[in-house]
Amino acid sequence: MDLNCDLGEGFGAWTMGDDEALLSVATSANIACGFHGGDPNTMRRTCDLAVENGVAIGAHVGYRDLAGFGRRRIEIAPQDLVNDIVYQIGALDGFARMAGGRVSYVKPHGALYNTVAAEPEYARALAEAVLRFDAELHVVGLAGSPGLHDVAEAGLNTVAEAFADRAYTAEGHLVPRSVEGSVLHDADEIAARCTALARSGGIESIDGVKVRVEAQTICVHGDTPGAVAIARRVRETLLAEGITLAPFAFADGAL
Amino acid sequence: MDLNCDLGEGFGAWTMGDDEALLSVATSANIACGFHGGDPNTMRRTCDLAVENGVAIGAHVGYRDLAGFGRRRIEIAPQDLVNDIVYQIGALDGFARMAGGRVSYVKPHGALYNTVAAEPEYARALAEAVLRFDAELHVVGLAGSPGLHDVAEAGLNTVAEAFADRAYTAEGHLVPRSVEGSVLHDADEIAARCTALARSGGIESIDGVKVRVEAQTICVHGDTPGAVAIARRVRETLLAEGITLAPFAFADGAL
Amino acid sequence: MDLNCDLGEGFGAWTMGDDEALLSVATSANIACGFHGGDPNTMRRTCDLAVENGVAIGAHVGYRDLAGFGRRRIEIAPQDLVNDIVYQIGALDGFARMAGGRVSYVKPHGALYNTVAAEPEYARALAEAVLRFDAELHVVGLAGSPGLHDVAEAGLNTVAEAFADRAYTAEGHLVPRSVEGSVLHDADEIAARCTALARSGGIESIDGVKVRVEAQTICVHGDTPGAVAIARRVRETLLAEGITLAPFAFADGAL
Amino acid sequence: MDLNCDLGEGFGAWTMGDDEALLSVATSANIACGFHGGDPNTMRRTCDLAVENGVAIGAHVGYRDLAGFGRRRIEIAPQDLVNDIVYQIGALDGFARMAGGRVSYVKPHGALYNTVAAEPEYARALAEAVLRFDAELHVVGLAGSPGLHDVAEAGLNTVAEAFADRAYTAEGHLVPRSVEGSVLHDADEIAARCTALARSGGIESIDGVKVRVEAQTICVHGDTPGAVAIARRVRETLLAEGITLAPFAFADGAL
Repeated sequence: MDLNCDLGEGFGAWTMGDDEALLSVATSANIACGFHGGDPNTMRRTCDLAVENGVAIGAHVGYRDLAGFGRRRIEIAPQDLVNDIVYQIGALDGFARMAGGRVSYVKPHGALYNTVAAEPEYARALAEAVLRFDAELHVVGLAGSPGLHDVAEAGLNTVAEAFADRAYTAEGHLVPRSVEGSVLHDADEIAARCTALARSGGIESIDGVKVRVEAQTICVHGDTPGAVAIARRVRETLLAEGITLAPFAFADGAL
Repeated sequence: MDLNCDLGEGFGAWTMGDDEALLSVATSANIACGFHGGDPNTMRRTCDLAVENGVAIGAHVGYRDLAGFGRRRIEIAPQDLVNDIVYQIGALDGFARMAGGRVSYVKPHGALYNTVAAEPEYARALAEAVLRFDAELHVVGLAGSPGLHDVAEAGLNTVAEAFADRAYTAEGHLVPRSVEGSVLHDADEIAARCTALARSGGIESIDGVKVRVEAQTICVHGDTPGAVAIARRVRETLLAEGITLAPFAFADGAL
Repeated sequence: MDLNCDLGEGFGAWTMGDDEALLSVATSANIACGFHGGDPNTMRRTCDLAVENGVAIGAHVGYRDLAGFGRRRIEIAPQDLVNDIVYQIGALDGFARMAGGRVSYVKPHGALYNTVAAEPEYARALAEAVLRFDAELHVVGLAGSPGLHDVAEAGLNTVAEAFADRAYTAEGHLVPRSVEGSVLHDADEIAARCTALARSGGIESIDGVKVRVEAQTICVHGDTPGAVAIARRVRETLLAEGITLAPFAFADGAL
Repeated sequence: MDLNCDLGEGFGAWTMGDDEALLSVATSANIACGFHGGDPNTMRRTCDLAVENGVAIGAHVGYRDLAGFGRRRIEIAPQDLVNDIVYQIGALDGFARMAGGRVSYVKPHGALYNTVAAEPEYARALAEAVLRFDAELHVVGLAGSPGLHDVAEAGLNTVAEAFADRAYTAEGHLVPRSVEGSVLHDADEIAARCTALARSGGIESIDGVKVRVEAQTICVHGDTPGAVAIARRVRETLLAEGITLAPFAFADGAL
């Protein structure tokens, strides 16, 4: 199993999250590329740390919206989105290579994540950007989403993602954040779900039904001290259960 | 001889210069990378046109200052400048490769051009950025400047640049724009100077003295209709004089 | 009748439109406030020119999106939009007062114009911003739109706007730009429609039906040389027909 | 005596400092206006809290440089700086008035603070901006600096500022941060110096010489938990010593 974390989300004098702590938890680092967060100094430092820690580097591409941290949907033309994504991957790849690594996957951030998961024209725009930049890159997206299916249809290696701290419906979809009980807070419960996801993909839905979520990577958050503690518990529990943690992107032995 | 032009300097809905006209004049295109001008759509389109026209692609890197178009010096720490430059080269290189080319040189823009020419710590920052990104890239700078010398000392291929429409002092320096007569406007005179620069490097200073300016590339401007006409005259005159025009970056036969 | 024009839409080194020409046509100037276009230098100069020409100053407020020129919808929380609008009005008002005038109305720009016209929560956000900033300000919006009605319900003076160069449906709505014939190009025809709008509000729909469009202001464009010529024709025709042109915002004799 | 603090320096999802804690310490709030930090939501919330707490609102104006947090000098033309400052004051004033207050002073931030203190043309640009916006506003600057003198000469009410946690030379200048001992860390020592500044203006220089620093306001920082504790100690000590703390801007009884 792979554990992915958002990293390098500071901008200039502003910091966000505890990047160093998370780099001892994650196997894959979603690194912000300057459009919703991340600046050149932060990108370089985060790439350096990722390579030092044997963590895979992913381009965490977002809408151009520093003021909204990429959490607001923007009605960009799909063809313009292709170019915004290529720009961000290219910018990060320079730092990844300087650090001795390379960008090995792409994951959309925030509102763009949701747009790509649900809207075919944007899923295809993401796919086109990645195919044109480097068709070997993996693309991370929501397990079971139409968008991830579209990206795979376009010929890319897709990686299905589950969320450690989110409740699922009986259909295997995320319960919206507005619903009570949609976000889990208990470290033991979250770690137990991760073990189940890694072993069988079988977890319990918010209605108490068994549901299968096929995922190759689990997203763990680290934007609060409590979140870092949960992330650590997830890692320790998975290792204690004998589950191997490794970047999906290095599965073929390549960097 | 090589003729370089600034291209791709629009941003979003705003345009600047006649890129298509200039691509039939230039042999090397200094393409803005998004910090002082240029957006992903413009970068992609300009790279596509450059490759179609057999024009070399250079990263025109600048200070992060859209509001000032990169024309205002910013007291950035040299180490931060390294990262700002790597970010810009990487972002452009993605589009260059999508177009079937690659970034083959770097030229600082506006205020950064002057800073690099005169201040060793910034010249070394530029050199470090290019060396770390790709040590094969050429660096364009002011002919005879200490900064260009520093970049060469750092181990990079440097390309000395002359300005077709600027007067020179007897010492071979540019006459400041504030001095009367510092900017030439007559197309025939400018074209004749370019011929002299290409043949012998010998031109007449503003004081009427013979001065040598050793240059491998001449900068021609295209931000006004008049400027495009002058640029065309320069090209036609050089060709009529039997001078070969080719990108310095392709001198070794490589792209 | 009032003629309003978009002005001050440049940003830094980039220009847009012929502001000086339009200030001899318009009675009300929609001045960009820095979020989609406009920078402090441009805002100051445009306010100065507006006051000199006796043209009313309106805050042309937009989404924070320089790269998209405010033409892309952003899913901003309505309460955040309130604050973005207050920021823009306040910033412009400083320059208006320096010039001896003041902001006398607010008009949303681009994608925000359409959002406000159609979506009640955003119409109310605009109304809240204006009410909190200065309840005396007028608000310009699409004639007959639910949004303009919501703004009036909130207690503001609303000003219904018609478009000189756009076709209308039999229901009095704008024909979408994607439909053939939706945009008019003939100066005489456009000027004649403006006369009809000013006299009776009665114009012919795209289907040839009589339709009433009650408008207190007509938007004329000026982003191309052809558009400026049409704008001039509109003005001359209205004056020749004996129609008084004056800013709606000065109707009560106040500035 | 007045205690001023930097507030509202977050941007979007990024926070900085503990604004609520500082509002119980400060009598004057330097509120960021969006150029180096601060966004409309933060500006509104901070103005609301300032008015609730009886704290004066100052426009903390900076260079347009979010990536550098306004800490990098930019070679902007003085006339352009005038407009950048007017823009920022106007934007903040909208929120101040919505909160029931108004901007009552202006303090330059970061690199601009140093530029204004030392360079006459920039001191005059600041003065021109404030005079044109509202000649009643106070201007805060470095005690004893030529720039503050220039601003006073221009006809504005100036307020001399001392730094609670910085060492001074025998000439009454700040010891550069690069010098050992230039920044004080002991809360008791800092509080004692503030008492001395408030009582007599007499403090001990880094060389052990008595030096007079005439100040009407003392800057206390709050960007770290330790800094907030020191700020509280300063306030408590001054009050315990019987020194009245009140905003300089309210000295005449007005808001």
